[in-house]
Amino acid sequence: MRLLTYRLKDTNDTYQVGLLKDEHIYPVEALKPYVTDEVVKSSITSDPELFYRQLPSLSALKIALEKVPETAGINKALIEFGPVVTRPSKIICVGVNYLDHVKEMGHDVPKLPVLFSKFPNALIGHNADIMGVAKSNQLDYEVELACVIGKTCTEVSESEALDYILGYTIANDISARDLQKRTPQWLQGKTLDKSTPVGPVIVTTDELNDASQLAIKSTINGEVRQISSTNQLIFDIPTLIAFISNLITLEPGDLILTGTPHGVGFAESPPRLLQSGDEVVCEIEGIGKLSNSVG
Amino acid sequence: MRLLTYRLKDTNDTYQVGLLKDEHIYPVEALKPYVTDEVVKSSITSDPELFYRQLPSLSALKIALEKVPETAGINKALIEFGPVVTRPSKIICVGVNYLDHVKEMGHDVPKLPVLFSKFPNALIGHNADIMGVAKSNQLDYEVELACVIGKTCTEVSESEALDYILGYTIANDISARDLQKRTPQWLQGKTLDKSTPVGPVIVTTDELNDASQLAIKSTINGEVRQISSTNQLIFDIPTLIAFISNLITLEPGDLILTGTPHGVGFAESPPRLLQSGDEVVCEIEGIGKLSNSVG
Repeated sequence: MRLLTYRLKDTNDTYQVGLLKDEHIYPVEALKPYVTDEVVKSSITSDPELFYRQLPSLSALKIALEKVPETAGINKALIEFGPVVTRPSKIICVGVNYLDHVKEMGHDVPKLPVLFSKFPNALIGHNADIMGVAKSNQLDYEVELACVIGKTCTEVSESEALDYILGYTIANDISARDLQKRTPQWLQGKTLDKSTPVGPVIVTTDELNDASQLAIKSTINGEVRQISSTNQLIFDIPTLIAFISNLITLEPGDLILTGTPHGVGFAESPPRLLQSGDEVVCEIEGIGKLSNSVG
Repeated sequence: MRLLTYRLKDTNDTYQVGLLKDEHIYPVEALKPYVTDEVVKSSITSDPELFYRQLPSLSALKIALEKVPETAGINKALIEFGPVVTRPSKIICVGVNYLDHVKEMGHDVPKLPVLFSKFPNALIGHNADIMGVAKSNQLDYEVELACVIGKTCTEVSESEALDYILGYTIANDISARDLQKRTPQWLQGKTLDKSTPVGPVIVTTDELNDASQLAIKSTINGEVRQISSTNQLIFDIPTLIAFISNLITLEPGDLILTGTPHGVGFAESPPRLLQSGDEVVCEIEGIGKLSNSVG
């Protein structure tokens, strides 16, 4: 299935949780009549934060989605995408996790995952404008595979780790290189308001079970800048979840951004950074395309 | 006023918002009959997360607190303190922000605030056990003055900054030095589950208006380890709020930990780090004492 948040275009409504099927968005509330189990039914809510806290059975949603009539859907052209998760308790990013990117950034190959964070103020959806040009002269793009946690997860092993994943999405870890590097900690360059597109959808694990060898790519104004495969991750997803959950309890809706491959603008000589008006498209096989213009 | 979260001892209830007056805790809901304004009344909720989102007028709460009979209060001895804020959208920490601590840690004096973060999984209340000994051989203490944001805050100037503060609390930025330093980013040593006491209360700005020269101290098992004044901050609170809000929109309930003075265990030769059973007391003038044992 393909989970998302959305609102009607040109409104300032709060985002609602929906499911994308063909070219229609089905509000999760519209599935309720097609769910028989009362407990599952009561756990279905269109509020994105609450949705992740009381995460309804995905198999029940899937059955309901097959039954719901197309008339219950909203034409995709009428909606605006929100960030797939609006206010996660944690956004954990993994730095320098592709060997080729480690080299281009002049870092040592990490012996352990390098973790840093973002806050929810940074999140935007597919097609929303990336902000930050006014704050930074060195905005850079980083396509990343992101996992969304589906169950509370503490001290799990690598072999269990994948059971805790709800699904996968695409993130663009926009980085203000000047702000990121002006102090020893990267945070201030990584979490500018409206700087981190995530989406367009979460593809749940019933549809995308194996994310270990997906083609991953970014383009700027149509020109390919990053191209690689998730099989190039230094620390793969089971390793990351085992490592992180041994330190930090993960909760449903938490996001883990797994790192970016080589080809970032900062590493070019001279650097080729983002300009206002640039269109950045991040693409991952089996998930789709995440497009955003620089505002 | 003195805001806190609490639950009855020996229960596993969710935390509720209350106000401490003399030796009694008044559930905020108990103040409702003494609030005349219907809008304010409807904004009062005992749910800590919701409380900060719809933050009721503090002056109305204050008037109600004067009127509420003592019989509406719960004896302080019967309750367990929660973290003063349970699930903030952001916990922003300022590193190396006291000159004497910069020197003892061998850092350069920062030209700009160094920001890093924690996640809500780390937060615990007054008297709760600090966890993490099983994960780290190098747990260290750091007493810090923390501000709690009271209004959405974007791009404010230093002269306006204090208007956005709800109040002040004490934080103990427990740091797993081994985990903090094993990669270039500190996050993984700073946000272990149940590692960061905050409390015991938020003293709101009607009671503590000027936090710029407060005595600040930590003791381990009764021995003074850190002693200083908040007037030693390299970047003071207005500077920090102006700086941060220029990058990141702050929201009600967000926590800013302003840094720790010299005297941390890691800087001693040999290091004097925390052991299981140690009692850490953090004290700030005008706020109180935050006591926690190492579990």
